[in-house]
Amino acid sequence: MLVLGLDPGLARTGYGFVRREGNRLFALAYGTVVTPAGLCLSERLFRLHRELGELIRTYHPEAMAVEELFFCRNAKTAIAVGQARGVALLAAAEAGLTVSEYTPLQVKQAVVGYGRAEKHQVQQMVRVLLALPDLPRPDDAADALAGAICHAHSHQPRREVVWP
Amino acid sequence: MLVLGLDPGLARTGYGFVRREGNRLFALAYGTVVTPAGLCLSERLFRLHRELGELIRTYHPEAMAVEELFFCRNAKTAIAVGQARGVALLAAAEAGLTVSEYTPLQVKQAVVGYGRAEKHQVQQMVRVLLALPDLPRPDDAADALAGAICHAHSHQPRREVVWP
Repeated sequence: MLVLGLDPGLARTGYGFVRREGNRLFALAYGTVVTPAGLCLSERLFRLHRELGELIRTYHPEAMAVEELFFCRNAKTAIAVGQARGVALLAAAEAGLTVSEYTPLQVKQAVVGYGRAEKHQVQQMVRVLLALPDLPRPDDAADALAGAICHAHSHQPRREVVWP
Repeated sequence: MLVLGLDPGLARTGYGFVRREGNRLFALAYGTVVTPAGLCLSERLFRLHRELGELIRTYHPEAMAVEELFFCRNAKTAIAVGQARGVALLAAAEAGLTVSEYTPLQVKQAVVGYGRAEKHQVQQMVRVLLALPDLPRPDDAADALAGAICHAHSHQPRREVVWP
């Protein structure tokens, strides 16, 4: 199972592809999609959508995991994040991915085992779980990987129940 | 000049196509794109984006006018509106439309001539300016038409200045 974790933002969107093979997790690729501040809003969304579409076509994930947002500093920030989130979810729907949303608490619980874990604890566990040589950078990519790990943990393959 | 005014929302997006010929304005089409509440978020955004794309391909507007948002009841609402706004702006960018954002004050000023006009005053003036037989309904479509009128008023053709 290959999961794309996303941490959407207009200026920078973190992404991380995590594959689960049995009980092991691997990071296939991670990084950020950056859109230049000098461009107009619709052009930035256009580029973000195009880059995410290309990443999805390159790696063929089956599912997307994205953080559920309840809180933002202010309405302006919330709308900006919402716009980026909108084109990201659209890219997922266009590629037929299932999209799951997780609260920050669920992500921390899944990655660290403790819902109030600090950011650096989450990053450290992402590094350990994915056997990365260093802490994943930048923060957006680490958050995206954490979301993907959360989804991979939540969707363990189930033993098929055969009714008699 | 043909302008598409939009009032984006996840559940309902108002749209209105306004053509300016000289000093006269005409409503070519207006209405709402509705996405069913029973669908998952990414599927709703997918449908909204598809419907807007079809409307743009049908009427070939040159510009899109959309209200600038500063304020929302809460972050959750702001993110939901932002997501719809994101795929709407993307549809505009994909069709090569210029996108202009106007504050509610600018729209009211342009349509009624008074920035603190009430909603029903705006709707009444939209009806008069576009010579519609009735008040445009629903509200989302009326708001979208108001935005398109604001843009059409703001972009009067200028007399070409020829330097000697």
